[in-house]
Amino acid sequence: MRDILEAVADGSLSPAEAEVRLSGYATTDAGRFDAARETRRGVPEAILAEGKTPDETATLAAAAVETSGRALVTRADTAHAEAVADALPDADIDRDARAKTVVAAAPAFERPDLDASVAIATGGTSDAEAAGEAAAVLREMGAAVERIEDVGVAHLGRVLDHLDTLREADVVVVAAGREGALPTVVAGLVDTPVIGLPVSTGYGHGGDGEAAVLGMLQSCTVLSVVNVDAGYIAGAQAGLIARAVADARDDDA
Amino acid sequence: MRDILEAVADGSLSPAEAEVRLSGYATTDAGRFDAARETRRGVPEAILAEGKTPDETATLAAAAVETSGRALVTRADTAHAEAVADALPDADIDRDARAKTVVAAAPAFERPDLDASVAIATGGTSDAEAAGEAAAVLREMGAAVERIEDVGVAHLGRVLDHLDTLREADVVVVAAGREGALPTVVAGLVDTPVIGLPVSTGYGHGGDGEAAVLGMLQSCTVLSVVNVDAGYIAGAQAGLIARAVADARDDDA
Amino acid sequence: MRDILEAVADGSLSPAEAEVRLSGYATTDAGRFDAARETRRGVPEAILAEGKTPDETATLAAAAVETSGRALVTRADTAHAEAVADALPDADIDRDARAKTVVAAAPAFERPDLDASVAIATGGTSDAEAAGEAAAVLREMGAAVERIEDVGVAHLGRVLDHLDTLREADVVVVAAGREGALPTVVAGLVDTPVIGLPVSTGYGHGGDGEAAVLGMLQSCTVLSVVNVDAGYIAGAQAGLIARAVADARDDDA
Amino acid sequence: MRDILEAVADGSLSPAEAEVRLSGYATTDAGRFDAARETRRGVPEAILAEGKTPDETATLAAAAVETSGRALVTRADTAHAEAVADALPDADIDRDARAKTVVAAAPAFERPDLDASVAIATGGTSDAEAAGEAAAVLREMGAAVERIEDVGVAHLGRVLDHLDTLREADVVVVAAGREGALPTVVAGLVDTPVIGLPVSTGYGHGGDGEAAVLGMLQSCTVLSVVNVDAGYIAGAQAGLIARAVADARDDDA
Amino acid sequence: MRDILEAVADGSLSPAEAEVRLSGYATTDAGRFDAARETRRGVPEAILAEGKTPDETATLAAAAVETSGRALVTRADTAHAEAVADALPDADIDRDARAKTVVAAAPAFERPDLDASVAIATGGTSDAEAAGEAAAVLREMGAAVERIEDVGVAHLGRVLDHLDTLREADVVVVAAGREGALPTVVAGLVDTPVIGLPVSTGYGHGGDGEAAVLGMLQSCTVLSVVNVDAGYIAGAQAGLIARAVADARDDDA
Amino acid sequence: MRDILEAVADGSLSPAEAEVRLSGYATTDAGRFDAARETRRGVPEAILAEGKTPDETATLAAAAVETSGRALVTRADTAHAEAVADALPDADIDRDARAKTVVAAAPAFERPDLDASVAIATGGTSDAEAAGEAAAVLREMGAAVERIEDVGVAHLGRVLDHLDTLREADVVVVAAGREGALPTVVAGLVDTPVIGLPVSTGYGHGGDGEAAVLGMLQSCTVLSVVNVDAGYIAGAQAGLIARAVADARDDDA
Amino acid sequence: MRDILEAVADGSLSPAEAEVRLSGYATTDAGRFDAARETRRGVPEAILAEGKTPDETATLAAAAVETSGRALVTRADTAHAEAVADALPDADIDRDARAKTVVAAAPAFERPDLDASVAIATGGTSDAEAAGEAAAVLREMGAAVERIEDVGVAHLGRVLDHLDTLREADVVVVAAGREGALPTVVAGLVDTPVIGLPVSTGYGHGGDGEAAVLGMLQSCTVLSVVNVDAGYIAGAQAGLIARAVADARDDDA
Amino acid sequence: MRDILEAVADGSLSPAEAEVRLSGYATTDAGRFDAARETRRGVPEAILAEGKTPDETATLAAAAVETSGRALVTRADTAHAEAVADALPDADIDRDARAKTVVAAAPAFERPDLDASVAIATGGTSDAEAAGEAAAVLREMGAAVERIEDVGVAHLGRVLDHLDTLREADVVVVAAGREGALPTVVAGLVDTPVIGLPVSTGYGHGGDGEAAVLGMLQSCTVLSVVNVDAGYIAGAQAGLIARAVADARDDDA
Repeated sequence: MRDILEAVADGSLSPAEAEVRLSGYATTDAGRFDAARETRRGVPEAILAEGKTPDETATLAAAAVETSGRALVTRADTAHAEAVADALPDADIDRDARAKTVVAAAPAFERPDLDASVAIATGGTSDAEAAGEAAAVLREMGAAVERIEDVGVAHLGRVLDHLDTLREADVVVVAAGREGALPTVVAGLVDTPVIGLPVSTGYGHGGDGEAAVLGMLQSCTVLSVVNVDAGYIAGAQAGLIARAVADARDDDA
Repeated sequence: MRDILEAVADGSLSPAEAEVRLSGYATTDAGRFDAARETRRGVPEAILAEGKTPDETATLAAAAVETSGRALVTRADTAHAEAVADALPDADIDRDARAKTVVAAAPAFERPDLDASVAIATGGTSDAEAAGEAAAVLREMGAAVERIEDVGVAHLGRVLDHLDTLREADVVVVAAGREGALPTVVAGLVDTPVIGLPVSTGYGHGGDGEAAVLGMLQSCTVLSVVNVDAGYIAGAQAGLIARAVADARDDDA
Repeated sequence: MRDILEAVADGSLSPAEAEVRLSGYATTDAGRFDAARETRRGVPEAILAEGKTPDETATLAAAAVETSGRALVTRADTAHAEAVADALPDADIDRDARAKTVVAAAPAFERPDLDASVAIATGGTSDAEAAGEAAAVLREMGAAVERIEDVGVAHLGRVLDHLDTLREADVVVVAAGREGALPTVVAGLVDTPVIGLPVSTGYGHGGDGEAAVLGMLQSCTVLSVVNVDAGYIAGAQAGLIARAVADARDDDA
Repeated sequence: MRDILEAVADGSLSPAEAEVRLSGYATTDAGRFDAARETRRGVPEAILAEGKTPDETATLAAAAVETSGRALVTRADTAHAEAVADALPDADIDRDARAKTVVAAAPAFERPDLDASVAIATGGTSDAEAAGEAAAVLREMGAAVERIEDVGVAHLGRVLDHLDTLREADVVVVAAGREGALPTVVAGLVDTPVIGLPVSTGYGHGGDGEAAVLGMLQSCTVLSVVNVDAGYIAGAQAGLIARAVADARDDDA
Repeated sequence: MRDILEAVADGSLSPAEAEVRLSGYATTDAGRFDAARETRRGVPEAILAEGKTPDETATLAAAAVETSGRALVTRADTAHAEAVADALPDADIDRDARAKTVVAAAPAFERPDLDASVAIATGGTSDAEAAGEAAAVLREMGAAVERIEDVGVAHLGRVLDHLDTLREADVVVVAAGREGALPTVVAGLVDTPVIGLPVSTGYGHGGDGEAAVLGMLQSCTVLSVVNVDAGYIAGAQAGLIARAVADARDDDA
Repeated sequence: MRDILEAVADGSLSPAEAEVRLSGYATTDAGRFDAARETRRGVPEAILAEGKTPDETATLAAAAVETSGRALVTRADTAHAEAVADALPDADIDRDARAKTVVAAAPAFERPDLDASVAIATGGTSDAEAAGEAAAVLREMGAAVERIEDVGVAHLGRVLDHLDTLREADVVVVAAGREGALPTVVAGLVDTPVIGLPVSTGYGHGGDGEAAVLGMLQSCTVLSVVNVDAGYIAGAQAGLIARAVADARDDDA
Repeated sequence: MRDILEAVADGSLSPAEAEVRLSGYATTDAGRFDAARETRRGVPEAILAEGKTPDETATLAAAAVETSGRALVTRADTAHAEAVADALPDADIDRDARAKTVVAAAPAFERPDLDASVAIATGGTSDAEAAGEAAAVLREMGAAVERIEDVGVAHLGRVLDHLDTLREADVVVVAAGREGALPTVVAGLVDTPVIGLPVSTGYGHGGDGEAAVLGMLQSCTVLSVVNVDAGYIAGAQAGLIARAVADARDDDA
Repeated sequence: MRDILEAVADGSLSPAEAEVRLSGYATTDAGRFDAARETRRGVPEAILAEGKTPDETATLAAAAVETSGRALVTRADTAHAEAVADALPDADIDRDARAKTVVAAAPAFERPDLDASVAIATGGTSDAEAAGEAAAVLREMGAAVERIEDVGVAHLGRVLDHLDTLREADVVVVAAGREGALPTVVAGLVDTPVIGLPVSTGYGHGGDGEAAVLGMLQSCTVLSVVNVDAGYIAGAQAGLIARAVADARDDDA
């Protein structure tokens, strides 16, 4: 830190530039920060609609569109979605009812376009919400997304039918509830990074995703894991990897 | 109960016969019981060597051979095994060091011979002890045992290579630690009963078989489960099913 | 695998036959699979009504009747049951309100008829739903079902009164909540396989079936276990065993 | 409290008497207290040998004999027992190796003699230590103790064979590990208070007494419970009940 | 068992008398049992209203009054209470709204009257329901009940003010939530049996009675414990002890 | 205790004065206690509105205002707040809707005024309720309160921007949910006592504040912790420290 | 941050001074930090001997003495203590064998001397190690320490006998294992901050300090808590409070 | 699958080529597989020395060197390391004692060399083993590794001092025990993927890495997690990401 300060002292660095160089931890107000975070990490902030009223959700979404050009709303029911649409009549609204996501974008907003792809596989229909949330984040980050649905471990054939798609992706997100074994099976078949996304299905002893998250942490193959139902985190982590790959492709292009 | 008692009263049933009819809960001493249990259920009692001295183990084994013709000792290390062999110089000794089992049989002892087979699959080498314990019980109950080793879910090909063996068995026991997904995968491939046997491998969060037993209880296919490392129980339960099948075959023969 | 492929290459095996031999993991679409699963394993797929609207449930039930001749709906309340009946005016509807199951069968549908029987015992009235779910699956698989109700371990006499019924069955399913000791008591009295079905009764510390499932896993006798309230799994596993026995009887007939 | 203080002020109550009336919380030093506790509650303090050296144990035992006439040492191995015997050459030493208890009594020491009896039942041999600890406390409190061993729930006949003994006792302590169901079965057969004593047997999921203590808390009959392996507590609680009964018998005699 | 059967055989024992001697486990139907249980153990069966409709509750209560002379309904809200009163217009209805209990007794019904008393202490107002449930059972069993309310451990003075009442009772039930320390404090002050009744107050980590039940099991003094909110069990166990004491008083009278 | 009693006996101490000296545990009725507690510890009793009707809450608040001059109501929704205001038309009402607190004070009531300050930092908006509850208690105890909001550990800059405020306070309360790391970060930056207040945010595995409370207990720096969402406890503990500091300042003034 | 940087730019602040102002997060190497931490927070770093060899421990202690004038070693057995003494022949060595602490101070080292006192109470002898660790830290921080031993909640008189000592301290640390209720009882008697220190005594269900830590978090009075056996943290937190009080006394002196 | 089989049938695809195309699940023996896995995924298999004898470890290492050119041994103590060196006198041995890893490589073995870098940060010295294990895997996979040690969250300055290094890496692995907050802090500062590696430090409630793994799963920023102490998995996952980046760089080069 001393060298930066001395550079400011001898005039070789302006205070503003110094602040930028130290900007990892320099913010003046909370509002300014969110834009900075999007800029630095490229991960769109999510507005969690669950537990908020439609009005509160819409207000936050409008603020997000104003400051960063778009809003990503997760765990949104119909009332949340309609309130967002009403509050932003000029925005492009993209709602995925199964994933319970709403994306509102200012007309002028341009998404990044990454030369990298992510496959998202699910074990069953009840994994669709978490997987869809991951897909929404990934699309906003600019990655190409391939969906592979209902390839549970009790039906190996379904997994194997999609082997090409899985192997061609740069990263794979695998959502699974119950015993959560699908990420292990997939990670045994591909040579790319796999992110396990446990889902809160299951019941009785070990239900609500507990068996799934423990099973993925115990996996006998190589994968990393996010929390139960953390579709946003899984998607964003896959997006960071995809962007690293895309940046490498671009750098050399 | 009254009808049995009245039959005794009017002389149409002897007290001894009455006792036999009520024999599910009639025993006179602990020693006599074990023989009765073997007779009734056909499951050899196991002598758990772990936590006993070699001498104690050998004494119990000698008593078992005397009363029931054989002794099945589990979780036996080398010292336990040698003490049993020393104590029973005339017995046939069958030791499986990996399974940590010792079977001592009187020369005249005849095992049952069931026309039924059980396949035992394991996910990895660390499942060998639990699986071997199951195999030992099954052999003593007279079932034919097929072993399939190291067919972990991260390597689907290994499972599929053994599909015929798995499908030809009357019952399947699947031992697996870590995430414990192998029984689910196998149960999706066969049309016979599958028993999941979780193994206390794994480490950190959900280790020592916890993720495995929870995962098997949460399985998205049809299987039943025993406790962690309960190789004896898994084998005996498979043996009861095998004997039911064999008895059905015999009845009609 | 190579030998099958070479057999195809030299014409000694047709591609279609090869696919059949590899069919454990060969499926072309999800819809086709369900029929295959029913065919291969003989276990009717269950439609879990809980968490679905009556309309969604009815739509799935209608699809099931069309593809496999019948639909088994579990955890169905009155509204679910009525929606299924309305959607399938020509079907035979069999509803068990206590078990919360509905079975809808096409007029032409013929259930299998197994020469094997399963006894289902419960500890108390609150075990009726789980036990009834097991019974419904078993009836669809063609097994003869004997119900024994309210034979809790605190009243040994009740258990002993039904000893003959328990001993004459080929398999026994025992549902119990609270401390979950009934399967252990029953397994000590019969020589057939016993499946423990823990029920989510109980309250306070260890409630919601936790004490029951742990107690069954720790049982000092031989039994295997399914998850809490997993009546469908317990019934299906018992059905697989019953069918194995019935097939053995038929083979020799 | 004010009335006592005013009585002291007006001389109608001496300070010493006032202290006695408030004596539930009046002690002058720790040493004096233990004697007071024995006097008031009649429960001998136990010296837990586990984790102490033989010397430390012997020193504490000698102090106990000096102040209260006897010492009750629990979880004592051979070295602890020998050290106690060496330190108290004049004392009567009563060691129960299976229960791991040692009682040292001054020659003049007279135990109470209660006209009340306690039955202690165990499910298996591994419950002997906890049950023996309970028995030792009870003998020191003066109750008559009846031992009933190895009456596990998987063998109902063994329980029923001892029904008279169980029903004739004033209180019943039932020790059981694994699934811990024996206290429930016994409590369904007697009309006296039953205390469940869970034992740390068992293995894998729910082992070390967890399933047992949860099962006893969830019991579908009436009983109260102590902690896992808390033989001393179970015995002392049974002793308090036995003494209440004996006192009632004496009062009316 | 053989001796009883031989006595029947030689006519020295009638079948009916034999059945009585074996009656611990002899029942002919469920209805007859409840009366038998009340007769044998003297503990009134409770009808748990929670989870039942008012109509179902009233029907069960009417049946209980008919067979055993009274009905004890627990966890009953106003609707349950009114339905019971409507269904039994001739019965004496005793409702305790705080305890959520309703007792309906046939006009001719005579409660037992035990010469024994039970003190019930609570830590705070939120313990009133569990304590009231215990009190209701005790009154039905005929014990004299003393209530001591709001004597939390954070206010020692309140406990000490009631020392006489606590010490004069034959048995003490202590209900406490949060950290559940009150039973330990009370047991250190009295020489009679203390039963700890944990209550599901508390919040966050260790809430819903978990800290309370663990704390009572870990108590550094002598007490036994029932499950969280198990007011009925605590009361019934105290009642069994009180009756043992009262019987001892009567025997000698 | 004897010396106090003897002083009463010889007239050197009046009974009333003796009672005062023993007043830590002397109370005559529950009503009188609350005033005593407020006097002794200076912590206003809180009325927990959650789970109470608006009417019940208002009645308790009116009683509190009458006996102690004010009422502090926590977890109060709009209906609770309105009922309190209606019941106390003359009181000064101070409601913080985000904190869900209501304070009603008699017109004549004078709060203490401590020369000490407490900083309350939060990680995010969902920590506002717990932090606001702490702030309300602190204001009633007379401490100066500084709020620092939304300084989550993922944004170090925000924390560092408020370093002066944090360092100038006499005590710091840090509320945080999810992984609960903020108290550790803050405690590494200040030389005053830090109290960690875990908040029940978070979801899936370790949610509802479990990860937060465990993380704070495991903190690699020096801090003490209260239970999840225990804003009242955190505020009161901080208030006790602040008062100790203020008293020290006053003593020397 | 910008204002500091601009002050550097316009020469009104030297780079070195800027670094000091930002020094909360400015360090140049790890070694320099520890001294800074001691300076800033005044809490001596502890060297945890457990898990280290005597040599490693001694080396670290020597480094600590060299850089900060003293070393505080915790969880040190005899071998660790001797190695430290051997490595520092000139240092003053202060060993507390029961607390397993060793303090080595350079001859010239001067401890701070705070005008503030801390009382440390324990429930039993097994709490001595944790309490002693707290005492050692407090002595090094300069606080006066009062020890009150063996005042368990089952013996209220012992607590009350020490009421004056408890009330005269500026802060109270209360160590307790088993059910951990002592901090609650003490906090109900004093008007100063109380810190609960749970100890890993206890056994069976809720043992190893789990019941104690949960009980303290659930306390129905005001206190804050540290982790199980965290004597160092409890002492340091009490020391920070004591120093705040002493500083206030000094400021006004 | 049918199209591949038909291609084989019509001769347009040789059986060998078909096997390659289906090779995700085609293996003929376990030995051949490991090579295949290394080839396909590029992750060196690890030989876990813990729980194996030095001889067993050396035998496996020799086999690994023979089949794949090198052996990576983890959790190896000195005896394991020496046995490996003795068994492979010609190999290059690279041992990291702190990480407990040994790498043995055939003289001809050439590691891959990826144009990608991974930073590994640790919170404290006790994280060195897990972090070192990750580093060893990464070196074998060919990534450049930057180590940043002892940057715990209680000392923000240390983290910030290494900001450049953290930001220049393509992937970051962050190992932390206790409360496990470091990965969250780091992930808030960089725009690359962060993998959290919880370490089994900590003690008491939430110790052994439990608080750390829960905290990382609950992180309020974007990261993915591996199991406690799973250094091998964290390193391999980071290596897969690094290779994806490096491949992208190469593709475009």
